[in-house]
Amino acid sequence: MHVLEYLYPMRTFLITSGSLENPNVMTADWVTPLSMNPPLLGVAIAHKRHTKKLIDKYGEFVVSVPTIELLKDVWIAGTLSGAKVNKAEKLSVTFVSSKKVKAPSIKECQANLECKVVDAVETGDHVFYIGEIVEVTYGDAFNDKPDVKNYNFILHISFGNSFTTNSHEIYRA
Amino acid sequence: MHVLEYLYPMRTFLITSGSLENPNVMTADWVTPLSMNPPLLGVAIAHKRHTKKLIDKYGEFVVSVPTIELLKDVWIAGTLSGAKVNKAEKLSVTFVSSKKVKAPSIKECQANLECKVVDAVETGDHVFYIGEIVEVTYGDAFNDKPDVKNYNFILHISFGNSFTTNSHEIYRA
Repeated sequence: MHVLEYLYPMRTFLITSGSLENPNVMTADWVTPLSMNPPLLGVAIAHKRHTKKLIDKYGEFVVSVPTIELLKDVWIAGTLSGAKVNKAEKLSVTFVSSKKVKAPSIKECQANLECKVVDAVETGDHVFYIGEIVEVTYGDAFNDKPDVKNYNFILHISFGNSFTTNSHEIYRA
Repeated sequence: MHVLEYLYPMRTFLITSGSLENPNVMTADWVTPLSMNPPLLGVAIAHKRHTKKLIDKYGEFVVSVPTIELLKDVWIAGTLSGAKVNKAEKLSVTFVSSKKVKAPSIKECQANLECKVVDAVETGDHVFYIGEIVEVTYGDAFNDKPDVKNYNFILHISFGNSFTTNSHEIYRA
């Protein structure tokens, strides 16, 4: 077991880059909030990824929030390379215009966080992109707080093809 | 709703700092892997946190992995300040020696990832510490892969006192 897998299970997100005409999407577990004000998040992308080239070119990306119904697409997005195939053609998701960035949003996702890159840090075999969240669009899973009673977010159990989701129970400490 | 809450629910971890004689612990949702080789992870810590002072002093910290049984401790660790009270006295967890860093591990946690700081990046109202994982100790939840069938890891639903856990179901894409 790789030492990083002791942090799993972790939420799985989709990262879109490029443009609506030429979209790319990959999966990423390595996503975290970084600052409340300004609202910043970070995502670690392997150097070899096609997404890295597109983020470097456009300076923008979108973090999209899938639910378990999109697991097949999430798996395809995570295992094919956008440098070799047009992933948009292999996926069932719908790319739609974002409001403030060129990178597209995904219609079927429950949230799309539109980000502009403000910093990039070399971290070993990945680059950690720090993005300011400039716009968010969202679905019913976020009408109030994240709705874990009615929605199943994706949790990646470890590296590889095993996933789970959230419980519907709520605990208060 | 804060825009960062569209990334929730998120896993909740404990960050220990200081030394076995003078331990401190806080909760953190903002933790992510950053690199496979070398094995790096990052954690965002608010400037005002006592933990920040201790990490700056020692250059080391531990990421501990609690399960839902430790929720009450997790909540206390996240809401009291180590600058004002001795949190170790308020908590039911047991601090034990780590193998390669001065910051203690937590006996009741299912994993303890011992980290040495290799970089620190200013990210808005937080500092993002990048740590190399130099040692890991773990319990039965990680005998093979993360055991989501038999263990309930903590998911923070959003900012505030609402938590859930993982489902026990496994999906393959």
